[in-house]
Amino acid sequence: MILGQNQYGKAESHVVRIVRDGATHHIKDLNVSVALSGDMEEVHLSGSNANVLTTDATKNTVFAFAKEHGVDSAEQFGIHLARHFVTSQDSIRTARIRIEEHAWERIGVPGPKQHSFVRRGQETRTAQITFDGRAWQIVSGLKDLVVLNSTDSEFHGYVKDRYTTLPETRDRVLATEVNARWRHAWTGDATDPGPTDWDRSYEGAREHLLAAFADTYSLSLQQTLYQMGSRVIDQCPGIDEIRLSLPNKHHFLADLSPFGLENDNEVYYAADRPYGLIEATVLRDGADPGIPADLTNL
Amino acid sequence: MILGQNQYGKAESHVVRIVRDGATHHIKDLNVSVALSGDMEEVHLSGSNANVLTTDATKNTVFAFAKEHGVDSAEQFGIHLARHFVTSQDSIRTARIRIEEHAWERIGVPGPKQHSFVRRGQETRTAQITFDGRAWQIVSGLKDLVVLNSTDSEFHGYVKDRYTTLPETRDRVLATEVNARWRHAWTGDATDPGPTDWDRSYEGAREHLLAAFADTYSLSLQQTLYQMGSRVIDQCPGIDEIRLSLPNKHHFLADLSPFGLENDNEVYYAADRPYGLIEATVLRDGADPGIPADLTNL
Amino acid sequence: MILGQNQYGKAESHVVRIVRDGATHHIKDLNVSVALSGDMEEVHLSGSNANVLTTDATKNTVFAFAKEHGVDSAEQFGIHLARHFVTSQDSIRTARIRIEEHAWERIGVPGPKQHSFVRRGQETRTAQITFDGRAWQIVSGLKDLVVLNSTDSEFHGYVKDRYTTLPETRDRVLATEVNARWRHAWTGDATDPGPTDWDRSYEGAREHLLAAFADTYSLSLQQTLYQMGSRVIDQCPGIDEIRLSLPNKHHFLADLSPFGLENDNEVYYAADRPYGLIEATVLRDGADPGIPADLTNL
Amino acid sequence: MILGQNQYGKAESHVVRIVRDGATHHIKDLNVSVALSGDMEEVHLSGSNANVLTTDATKNTVFAFAKEHGVDSAEQFGIHLARHFVTSQDSIRTARIRIEEHAWERIGVPGPKQHSFVRRGQETRTAQITFDGRAWQIVSGLKDLVVLNSTDSEFHGYVKDRYTTLPETRDRVLATEVNARWRHAWTGDATDPGPTDWDRSYEGAREHLLAAFADTYSLSLQQTLYQMGSRVIDQCPGIDEIRLSLPNKHHFLADLSPFGLENDNEVYYAADRPYGLIEATVLRDGADPGIPADLTNL
Repeated sequence: MILGQNQYGKAESHVVRIVRDGATHHIKDLNVSVALSGDMEEVHLSGSNANVLTTDATKNTVFAFAKEHGVDSAEQFGIHLARHFVTSQDSIRTARIRIEEHAWERIGVPGPKQHSFVRRGQETRTAQITFDGRAWQIVSGLKDLVVLNSTDSEFHGYVKDRYTTLPETRDRVLATEVNARWRHAWTGDATDPGPTDWDRSYEGAREHLLAAFADTYSLSLQQTLYQMGSRVIDQCPGIDEIRLSLPNKHHFLADLSPFGLENDNEVYYAADRPYGLIEATVLRDGADPGIPADLTNL
Repeated sequence: MILGQNQYGKAESHVVRIVRDGATHHIKDLNVSVALSGDMEEVHLSGSNANVLTTDATKNTVFAFAKEHGVDSAEQFGIHLARHFVTSQDSIRTARIRIEEHAWERIGVPGPKQHSFVRRGQETRTAQITFDGRAWQIVSGLKDLVVLNSTDSEFHGYVKDRYTTLPETRDRVLATEVNARWRHAWTGDATDPGPTDWDRSYEGAREHLLAAFADTYSLSLQQTLYQMGSRVIDQCPGIDEIRLSLPNKHHFLADLSPFGLENDNEVYYAADRPYGLIEATVLRDGADPGIPADLTNL
Repeated sequence: MILGQNQYGKAESHVVRIVRDGATHHIKDLNVSVALSGDMEEVHLSGSNANVLTTDATKNTVFAFAKEHGVDSAEQFGIHLARHFVTSQDSIRTARIRIEEHAWERIGVPGPKQHSFVRRGQETRTAQITFDGRAWQIVSGLKDLVVLNSTDSEFHGYVKDRYTTLPETRDRVLATEVNARWRHAWTGDATDPGPTDWDRSYEGAREHLLAAFADTYSLSLQQTLYQMGSRVIDQCPGIDEIRLSLPNKHHFLADLSPFGLENDNEVYYAADRPYGLIEATVLRDGADPGIPADLTNL
Repeated sequence: MILGQNQYGKAESHVVRIVRDGATHHIKDLNVSVALSGDMEEVHLSGSNANVLTTDATKNTVFAFAKEHGVDSAEQFGIHLARHFVTSQDSIRTARIRIEEHAWERIGVPGPKQHSFVRRGQETRTAQITFDGRAWQIVSGLKDLVVLNSTDSEFHGYVKDRYTTLPETRDRVLATEVNARWRHAWTGDATDPGPTDWDRSYEGAREHLLAAFADTYSLSLQQTLYQMGSRVIDQCPGIDEIRLSLPNKHHFLADLSPFGLENDNEVYYAADRPYGLIEATVLRDGADPGIPADLTNL
């Protein structure tokens, strides 16, 4: 019997950091999951916890670091945490920090007091920071971003096998919920502080994904996916790889002919299940893939 | 044995309506639930469906009406549906239409082609339209709108019983997920077309809720709730009643003292369960309550 | 401006009570929501908390009472809580306790040690206990119980309007997720201890619901609903009213004809949305309805 | 720019198969997700669908195969599907079928008619079948299985760093939601029909997981995990590898001391977030790992 890959930590510590700049407040809202691995054979075999930093302590560290280091960005916060776990505990060789971030907008009120917020509620920003004591892997991303083109999408020319019944179309609605992860070129080391403007980098990648989705005259969701991914690689020099998982949120034209009504691409039934699921990685020339294939559990 | 209140219909028909104004497209995204009641004793007692319009037909009607009448607003669409069911079927006395609407924003692209959208993802707009052949009840609302004040909230002076351990505070985070329903004064009749600008009415109520939340220096969530509700009644003459259900999304100050760190209202732990739940109705003078007390299942 | 119905309390305190009977342990797993109402005008109008028992204290009371009174049944536990809040605080006139209970089964192991459990995971049991200082209303129930008959269900003879396209059928799958609430006849008073065997009462009602579903040759889901409800009223003398909310979990026969295959009621597509939703109350002769019409938010 | 790993298919086709053995019916309830990969560069680069079998056709195949081959077990059904896609389409090199299965129990009624079922609702059974034209990888599993030991669990002797505040304990509740995947030794080839009794194999692995959880006197959740995994490897000769992902569903002892009450391991607060997450693989000697490390998205 062999113990294979193992990791442990506290998942989903939900930390909210408020910064008071006079009467103007700022907010960062992170859901942080820590996974540690290293010299953990004994705790599995005998139950000895001598090498185990408790998951409770990893949670405490998240909250303490929000005070000690602040939260500049999800990526920067994860770098602080990962470096700490790997460099402060002999038994821990690798730390992987996963963060989900929810954005908040100000509620506009007159006067100097600016401490009211409404949760943006659109995409969830994600970050995964991995450190093994020598090199970093930073994967930023987003999920839950639902987009739709109401035209400029065709679908035809596909294989027709015995089980193919789908009619071809020259004008369909194309909608998806973008799930994207992109890996930064920077790998640094234990002392390299790394890039500083992770938030601007995120905004750039997000804008390119949206623009490429809107700009592409689509002959297949795969083509749209590739345009989205390659736009990011092309426009964001710090990003070497991107993985997209795009469910095809089917909008079927409602059949109104039994009621004597024509449906000229006006009325759609938005279906839940089943759905097409299109997934692919786009890499910069020369880059090695580092993002696992399965971003979702399906 | 007596058959009591009963109703039936098709729930959650998800209809998306696209309007093409040249190269500029518009989108309405509604999740529509129909509930009908009337002369339905026989189907319960003997299984005779002679008085039953099928739920499948009610679903078909939703999609057909999106073509025949368009979707001007959720409320207007529901009025068309409810009037149809009550006036076209002898056995149906009352129709209640519930609608959830998701808003979409344009993805900004240069040029005349404007057919790309991103789902706004913030609050879900709701509408409930009830018609009994004589009078209308229109209840508009929203849910899932998460708001937070990072200061100007106190909590003290409460009852201290044997089980009270909560320390008083003069400065706390106040956060909630707004769940609101407001009833319009208009009750019309079978031929009265009713108000026309339901969308503007919705935007007004939403803005007043946000502004009142932000403006209120809070001594309790109940006080904030009442300020939100009374602001809507005060500022929106067409609205006679509003019900608010506000979960207190607790943000507990993280205890950093074991680590020798001070936490001067900077780092919070955002808790999920349990949560305070504050619910109340605010009515215009002279109005009778019409919105049920329980907006949620808890 | 008038303050209408209002209530407040702590929702979803998740308490687990272990009883150790030697090496044999017993477990009760309750999710408890407290809603209090009474003399609460001032806290809404001025923010004065002088009449407010904190929601935090109501949560503490849940955990303390699990020790002080034990958890005999969800209903009994709720009676202890509701009586306490109403009788111990002048400002509180009515207390409503809602409880969700998850059942656990033993993991069978040899030997005297019996402290291992697996969550049953089938239905969620519910209880709502309301006390206004004079009388009790006890509503027990269940939700999430998914049942299916693979035959003995027909559907035909319904109204055919312009929007009706559904073909009639003499043999269909009938499936639903049972959501039931039943009101006990007992109303007692502040000193009446009430019935004692709430757990047996629950098991009885549950068994009758399942048996009636299985026994009924169905011509409509309404008929099945009425059979289920009337069976409970008929067989359970302590229950005066039952409300059922039954989504029709459609199982559509997959159309295999394009592939030259016959589908003799063998292969079904289980759809999610939209779904029929059938709701009704069945009352004992002479009983007044006390359960609100809307068990769900749709 | 390089196109990296890519796959596509229809996710979550929910097929229910009824078999009528006279008046005794049998039911299989599968949620099937298909992912295909192969010669798909062109559809990404130019949008040409010439090599693309539509996701709609893969869905049709799921329903047609439920008729043509029946549903003996999730694994066997997946093998039929994967073999079909890889052997019938030149452009498809690899097919991966993921299946979630919900179990149903009979509702006991007297007489020969046995066609009434209640969904079991406990764990969700899973199966992943991958075929590349030469070899098979079959990974069976389960999720959503919640288990609890109310004693025989200790936790102490761990690292105490600056952020450690957790007190040691000699008697705690240990609860988790089992998420397990196990890889079968069988790899067969395109013509090898493979093992036949996948259902019995599943029941065996499930029983060993439960028994090992119940039997283990636990000094850490890692130790319990390893006991569960190694029991399966030890007792199930056809299984070479198992991966377990065990969230620590914390049950914190409620602090009743402010109320003058002792809490002798009787009353617990069941917390949701954050939670410990313990993950590890156990392998048979000589086996190579084949199950990815991340079964969940956290």
